Amino acid sequence: MYIGVDIGGTNIAVGLVDEEGKIIHKGGVPTGVGRPFEEIMKDIADLIKRVIEESDYKEEDVKAIGIGSPGLPDDEKGTIVFANNLHWHNVPVRAELEKYFDLPIRIENDGNTAGLAEAVAGACKGVENSITLTLGTGIGAGIVINGKPYSGTHSIGAELGHMIVQVDNGIPCTCGNSGCWERYASATALIREGKKAAQDNPDSLIYKSVDGDLDKITAKTVIDAAKEGDATALELFDKYVYYLAMGIITIINSFDPAIIAIGGGVAKAGDFLMDALKKKVAEHIFYKDVPYAQITRAVLGNDAGIIGAAMLGRL
Amino acid sequence: MYIGVDIGGTNIAVGLVDEEGKIIHKGGVPTGVGRPFEEIMKDIADLIKRVIEESDYKEEDVKAIGIGSPGLPDDEKGTIVFANNLHWHNVPVRAELEKYFDLPIRIENDGNTAGLAEAVAGACKGVENSITLTLGTGIGAGIVINGKPYSGTHSIGAELGHMIVQVDNGIPCTCGNSGCWERYASATALIREGKKAAQDNPDSLIYKSVDGDLDKITAKTVIDAAKEGDATALELFDKYVYYLAMGIITIINSFDPAIIAIGGGVAKAGDFLMDALKKKVAEHIFYKDVPYAQITRAVLGNDAGIIGAAMLGRL
Repeated sequence: MYIGVDIGGTNIAVGLVDEEGKIIHKGGVPTGVGRPFEEIMKDIADLIKRVIEESDYKEEDVKAIGIGSPGLPDDEKGTIVFANNLHWHNVPVRAELEKYFDLPIRIENDGNTAGLAEAVAGACKGVENSITLTLGTGIGAGIVINGKPYSGTHSIGAELGHMIVQVDNGIPCTCGNSGCWERYASATALIREGKKAAQDNPDSLIYKSVDGDLDKITAKTVIDAAKEGDATALELFDKYVYYLAMGIITIINSFDPAIIAIGGGVAKAGDFLMDALKKKVAEHIFYKDVPYAQITRAVLGNDAGIIGAAMLGRL
Repeated sequence: MYIGVDIGGTNIAVGLVDEEGKIIHKGGVPTGVGRPFEEIMKDIADLIKRVIEESDYKEEDVKAIGIGSPGLPDDEKGTIVFANNLHWHNVPVRAELEKYFDLPIRIENDGNTAGLAEAVAGACKGVENSITLTLGTGIGAGIVINGKPYSGTHSIGAELGHMIVQVDNGIPCTCGNSGCWERYASATALIREGKKAAQDNPDSLIYKSVDGDLDKITAKTVIDAAKEGDATALELFDKYVYYLAMGIITIINSFDPAIIAIGGGVAKAGDFLMDALKKKVAEHIFYKDVPYAQITRAVLGNDAGIIGAAMLGRL
């Protein structure tokens, strides 16, 4: 058995996970960002103990604790170097948790834990090289090479949302650069363009379906309108799929994984998105007659964070 | 001892290479593109025999033959699937060479052999993860992860020259896509922009140094003019360095290698280029206070092809 801890900006989820990546029992608490670090870590320790207690297992059955965190963890030192949305800077996560548990404790970026989860127990099971993309506020990415999460030499890799896809006149990004992929292909990007298009086209279904209240526009609003055949939404959707495809082309031309799994809010559009995406990638692929990555939906949803964190203990 | 074969569009180079990646003896023959495949392979076999004969070693001392080829080799099948500038399509390189030698024969893309050479015996010696870029007609790339060449699941990875860096209104690329990195940051790109700038600015040193014969403009023409402080050349050079830096930022944000080594004709500009490049990368790097890849010049030059091919036999 392994414990997986998924630290998010809003909630912390903890699960007891078996060798195959199956969640046996799980629980959650609010993160309460802004509280003292030690307080949050005590909540995590209490939650881990509760989750184990509520299961049929005991602490002795647990081989390791894995932690998935946003930002930049340093697994070697056992710290989280930066996690802006947790307001954490160089916090000793492992040392703090070792006050409560005598177990190996591993730390990874949450993009990479999601990727590892899909590789062990999800859409990328059975292949050596895979990449899981999460299309949400930004674009999260988890890279698995030779069955192991890959985040590079200084743990600053796998930030595929910050591949530069527009060097000239790129859209400014929260990271300080301009032209990052997530400014073009995240849910946020689709919403931003949806609002613009609705404002310019009050006749469009996007505008109508929110009764003109543009702040209500979500990725789903745009995609649903495109599914209905609304011209404004379709044009926008096509452009979005193009941006998504071009980033995936870069991933294929550089990493050439066996599978690219796509999760996050936007992926809920299902086959409507996936079919359009696969078609666009096929149009732009470098080697036309050679097999390349299968593009598929991620399957673990929110549980990926817990499962992937837990599976760190198996590596 | 290992034999390394570097197949190029113009010449074929063969070297006898020791365990540490040092060339003991080497030789070359013209490729003679367009001749029957078997004829070219016989020339390679003859050259291998000659190079061994001219050294103090014997065929029994050779443990393996490694072949670096442009295009898309399939090491598993022992074939080269595509090599457009050799006019090769699904040629059985290993089977053909086995007519002459009873030795293990490995095949890799020449970008990856150059990367492996720098990793074993050059600028990237001693680190696990490195990327070698060759700025020439296009941008060649060799990725080494955990000490081994990485070209992905279907051997179509490591084409970093074809990362999409301009999704909107990108410059058309020879690969069929638009906006590929090598259209912005190869020697070809610098020459193209140099010609344009010279035509528009007959007062510039670029124009003067070729006496208005624009076809004589090389990457060196532009860089030398920039070194002299010519305003037109400097503007162009700054832009070129920016494009180069932004691709490198994408490489850091995705692969996060320990070292990025830069070779090819443009790299001969030396510190003038490297200092400007490092400064630009530092300005645009994602995590400002965290160590990231050292950017340095590749050191093996044309020998990288032979050395890296030979080192395939050591893997």
